[in-house]
Amino acid sequence: MTTGVRRRMAVEERRRQLIGVALELFSHRSPDEVSIDEIAAAAGISRPLVYHYFPGKLSLYEAALKRAAEDLAERFVEPHEGPLGARLLRVMGRFFDFVDEHGPGFSALMRGGPAVAGTLGRDADAAVNANALIDSVRQAAYEEILRHLGITEPPARLELVIRSWVSLAESTALIWLDGRRIPRAELELQLVHDFAALTAVSAAYDTEMAAILTGILAEEPADGPFGDLVARLVALAPR
Amino acid sequence: MTTGVRRRMAVEERRRQLIGVALELFSHRSPDEVSIDEIAAAAGISRPLVYHYFPGKLSLYEAALKRAAEDLAERFVEPHEGPLGARLLRVMGRFFDFVDEHGPGFSALMRGGPAVAGTLGRDADAAVNANALIDSVRQAAYEEILRHLGITEPPARLELVIRSWVSLAESTALIWLDGRRIPRAELELQLVHDFAALTAVSAAYDTEMAAILTGILAEEPADGPFGDLVARLVALAPR
Repeated sequence: MTTGVRRRMAVEERRRQLIGVALELFSHRSPDEVSIDEIAAAAGISRPLVYHYFPGKLSLYEAALKRAAEDLAERFVEPHEGPLGARLLRVMGRFFDFVDEHGPGFSALMRGGPAVAGTLGRDADAAVNANALIDSVRQAAYEEILRHLGITEPPARLELVIRSWVSLAESTALIWLDGRRIPRAELELQLVHDFAALTAVSAAYDTEMAAILTGILAEEPADGPFGDLVARLVALAPR
Repeated sequence: MTTGVRRRMAVEERRRQLIGVALELFSHRSPDEVSIDEIAAAAGISRPLVYHYFPGKLSLYEAALKRAAEDLAERFVEPHEGPLGARLLRVMGRFFDFVDEHGPGFSALMRGGPAVAGTLGRDADAAVNANALIDSVRQAAYEEILRHLGITEPPARLELVIRSWVSLAESTALIWLDGRRIPRAELELQLVHDFAALTAVSAAYDTEMAAILTGILAEEPADGPFGDLVARLVALAPR
């Protein structure tokens, strides 16, 4: 290994470490409350050395956002084995792990990522980048769920159900973070049920969606999340 | 009426007219594509006169946003008469009227309002204001629905259902605007059904929510939106 390669790896390693430290700090407080001094101290290096790797807090914040976005997108990846309800439930567990780990940072980003970036750099480009990152995670989640359904050319109504469910997962997580008044395990299961419910509402008025719903339910065990929901709803229904 | 009062009224009248003209322009294109010259031309006044009433495009954009937010919040106001399903359906009709009228402006605002404001003034305060306005509309919609349910101290699970449904209405409207591939009347009805579905999912695992759901359904006619949905879902359910 030449010295040049070794040096480049050391630089990459140091950048990775700094991004990790910054992400940890940005996850727990709003970015404008986190100083470069604090990041330097947490990383055990000097302030000038931080600037050697990143020109400013905005670029470090952007790198941390990118790391978080990649991490979040990965949580949606799930083996294509077993019934869909159980798969979605595992995905929701990892999604809430992420939300739990990055609470205030997730909240600040989703409630006003661009505004947050604005307070750092007053830079419209940074705002647009944050929005683009969030959209890329949504798109990855959407495509992953389509793959689980085994559908390559989704009808408009299915696209709507999946995309609006992804947005429902976001808003449910944000509401949960605001006081954590409902156990998260309950909400993970609820979101899986919500997916079935939104699909069922669409299926009630569209034969193509009805065929997709029937296909999903055919693979579900009676004691899985979907089977359990149907049994409880039937018990609730007015007779 | 003194001359002073008359002059003040004329100023208010002129400001109102300018806000209306600006809102119309901002509704159809992204704010950074709309020039003060264009606003002046559309209002039939000179560019300096626009600046006499508003110091710059940002303040005019903010005033237009405020007008739009008030308008949107009003669409959620509905007489407390008749079954809830029919009331919600009328509200959704007015909500989609608004989305239809303000399409690109609504989309730009909801997808990145702060970013949009950023391109106008590179001013973090404007970004925060746009977020606060959006939140005030969400809050008004939430409170209005609570009033329709006749509930003053909502349990955490009901608050979650209503707030996440408001967010679902937003995301459904945004997805609709992107290509308008599904008739809007279908989505208005679907959102009313989604409200019932999200409530039912929550009610399936919580007795307090079950009591609220039962109360709602007791008032619903068999041929109303909720009754029709239940009949169709029962027909779909695996036997």
